[in-house]
Amino acid sequence: MVKAADFKNKHFISMMDYSREELDYILSVADKMVDISKESSDLAKGKVLGSMFFEPSTRTRLSFETAMFRLGGNVTTVADPMTSSAKKGETFEDTISTISNYVDVIVMRHPDSDAALRAKKVAKVPYINGGSGTWEHPTQTMLDLHCIRYAKGKIDGLTIGMVGDLKNGRTVHSLLKALRHYNVKVYCIAPDILKMKQEVLEAVKGKVEVIEVSDLTENMPYLDVVYMTRVQRERFTSQEEYDKVKDSYVMDRKMIEEHGKKDVVIMHPLPRINEISTDVDDMPNAWYFRQVGHGIYARMAIIALALGLWKD
Amino acid sequence: MVKAADFKNKHFISMMDYSREELDYILSVADKMVDISKESSDLAKGKVLGSMFFEPSTRTRLSFETAMFRLGGNVTTVADPMTSSAKKGETFEDTISTISNYVDVIVMRHPDSDAALRAKKVAKVPYINGGSGTWEHPTQTMLDLHCIRYAKGKIDGLTIGMVGDLKNGRTVHSLLKALRHYNVKVYCIAPDILKMKQEVLEAVKGKVEVIEVSDLTENMPYLDVVYMTRVQRERFTSQEEYDKVKDSYVMDRKMIEEHGKKDVVIMHPLPRINEISTDVDDMPNAWYFRQVGHGIYARMAIIALALGLWKD
Amino acid sequence: MVKAADFKNKHFISMMDYSREELDYILSVADKMVDISKESSDLAKGKVLGSMFFEPSTRTRLSFETAMFRLGGNVTTVADPMTSSAKKGETFEDTISTISNYVDVIVMRHPDSDAALRAKKVAKVPYINGGSGTWEHPTQTMLDLHCIRYAKGKIDGLTIGMVGDLKNGRTVHSLLKALRHYNVKVYCIAPDILKMKQEVLEAVKGKVEVIEVSDLTENMPYLDVVYMTRVQRERFTSQEEYDKVKDSYVMDRKMIEEHGKKDVVIMHPLPRINEISTDVDDMPNAWYFRQVGHGIYARMAIIALALGLWKD
Repeated sequence: MVKAADFKNKHFISMMDYSREELDYILSVADKMVDISKESSDLAKGKVLGSMFFEPSTRTRLSFETAMFRLGGNVTTVADPMTSSAKKGETFEDTISTISNYVDVIVMRHPDSDAALRAKKVAKVPYINGGSGTWEHPTQTMLDLHCIRYAKGKIDGLTIGMVGDLKNGRTVHSLLKALRHYNVKVYCIAPDILKMKQEVLEAVKGKVEVIEVSDLTENMPYLDVVYMTRVQRERFTSQEEYDKVKDSYVMDRKMIEEHGKKDVVIMHPLPRINEISTDVDDMPNAWYFRQVGHGIYARMAIIALALGLWKD
Repeated sequence: MVKAADFKNKHFISMMDYSREELDYILSVADKMVDISKESSDLAKGKVLGSMFFEPSTRTRLSFETAMFRLGGNVTTVADPMTSSAKKGETFEDTISTISNYVDVIVMRHPDSDAALRAKKVAKVPYINGGSGTWEHPTQTMLDLHCIRYAKGKIDGLTIGMVGDLKNGRTVHSLLKALRHYNVKVYCIAPDILKMKQEVLEAVKGKVEVIEVSDLTENMPYLDVVYMTRVQRERFTSQEEYDKVKDSYVMDRKMIEEHGKKDVVIMHPLPRINEISTDVDDMPNAWYFRQVGHGIYARMAIIALALGLWKD
Repeated sequence: MVKAADFKNKHFISMMDYSREELDYILSVADKMVDISKESSDLAKGKVLGSMFFEPSTRTRLSFETAMFRLGGNVTTVADPMTSSAKKGETFEDTISTISNYVDVIVMRHPDSDAALRAKKVAKVPYINGGSGTWEHPTQTMLDLHCIRYAKGKIDGLTIGMVGDLKNGRTVHSLLKALRHYNVKVYCIAPDILKMKQEVLEAVKGKVEVIEVSDLTENMPYLDVVYMTRVQRERFTSQEEYDKVKDSYVMDRKMIEEHGKKDVVIMHPLPRINEISTDVDDMPNAWYFRQVGHGIYARMAIIALALGLWKD
């Protein structure tokens, strides 16, 4: 039986480290945070989060900092890789050891893919991976899971569509891998050249029923949740090819009203460009801005658990 | 009858939106903040201010952030226009919608003159205009009004001098417009080429008695409040012309002692260069540094009202 | 008899301003902060620290900000010299006068050596020198004293080694000067071209027993505390000369086990490059990372005393 103490003083590095039971536990703590975030909390009073963004990511930083404030704690921010020390030749490991003596918990975003795994070995306080190069960004996946569960009341039994660039999107790769723990059906809806990465499909083989298709309109009626992603011009060799594809993977009011389930949930990791039309923004189906708020709940849960502040 | 509830969840965009009664109400709340700021407050406990300075303005930022801390709240700061999202093509409206899901109240400084009006349409939490291009910077005007009222005990009945560059100074334009609600006499004291902007004079016509003059010494004896501004070299075509003018609009100890009322109040939006001599600094008439503190009281009032934290 | 009230509303500018009794008093308050920092404190509730780093120093900034948070206060950060105001021609003195009206206490790091002494004259709230050019960085010395006292239980009677570049290191200069108040023996262990600065030796003449030597291994057995410093390539005229020296002033596990006292305390102002081998890191003698934590305790004491929050 999973309990709060299992997470105390532990690092939060990779989604691969958690079982279904552990994920469900974290999500249930995040549920409690929805209410706590509305009131003022003293849970993390006197605690300090070191918010270390050695690569800019304003949204992720805002989300973590707000999460810590909502818990009643404080935040000290470093927006550059402690340049002077690094220039003098300090190792990344020494930087982490030093920071461990300032703060109670570290969140770090780092351009290097191995940063989180290296930090884990030397950090003397809980280290939360806020995105490590092209490797994992696990709190994004936790917020996506929490938003789905909150919007639909459950994850098991859902049919989820992932739409757009499924080849290059870190977000959809992580989410699909995390969904291997749940009983879901996933439609991967993408043009041929942007199909879901083979490696990810293999990771969920036999665990998630994946249906690969290329037409959104046709498959829209089956979907409980649609996770949209950006289709970027630079992935295509010609403008013509891009234009053709781009227009096929756009979510608009008409698509939802004519082809979607009444309560279909539209998500997006943001920023969106034109793959979701602004005429969707005031529909109850539009969850992509509210999704951001679930980042705060999920991160509150992760911080509170790591600091040992949560009691069962 | 104006009451706290009238301001709850409302944006604070333009001085033009407020009646005399509303201004007086906000100023009276700011009066209460003078005492509250000396003690610790839990009024805004658990609330988060998003301090978004997409154009640098250290003073305004410090003032808002300190105001939030004095109310017992917290602050998350963004000092750049969320570059990565903007580069990916995110609209300003989407940025505001996203931030609305992180924080309880937004203060934004933005280089675009239409930023505040655009933000107002999409912000789901109160949006406070911290300066919008060459358009309004309304909290500066609130602090000026509060400082005058605090220093003199009233605004009605005062004779106020505005001195220096009245053609280009946004601060004096806004202040004069705001004074249309009060029964005041205003001396606009400036060289011919820097006279008060015609458009502003028209806006207060019939409401404020404006006297346009060019000599400071001669008119000094009438003034209860003197609002000094910088005269910038680049406004003049020749160094000679600049030098002549510059020396005529300088406030010093001699000017106050020989020509001013005993309790004349000297104000300045800062930074001052040489238009106020440092020999004034330790005179009781020097209000320009204390004026800064009134920025905190006024902003505490505006934040507390917008968040619905103030009870009548 | 020294008491808390002696420090209330006072600036903290130079180690030269304090007597032995005053240093001991501050260190004893820092002792109390070790426990207070583990719990949440309301000592500085509602107070705001202005963290003004006009020269980057991430570690010092983190340390001060965390110190303020641990006391229950808040922090507003300025990472640049208020560029726009300075560009408009504002004097440093006016900047300090202005900031004095925002915050309750100022910590400033400044590239100019006379910044702290200039600020002291105009600051209307306590001003703490966080490093002023090549002049003093007194809180670093306070943390070093506190770490020594905490690690060894006392300062009097100790034999302390300073190792490496004693000619150029501001840290060891200040520490040695501060030790003139204590009954200690100091081994200055350096190559001829990097010997302890003559001016510093004169300042402690007759107060500290200083032994100048060049061999670390030989003198290691006498030392209770070893304060290591970086030996920088650019101090040498040839690579050959540098290589020879560099290898003679390295602390490693073998040096400690074969030549050191069992409980010798190894310190370093950090960042370390290779002058302390990583094989020392997990020895109980390694105090250099914990030393960082003493920066928080010392700064908590200094802030609490300056704000008049500490009661005897």
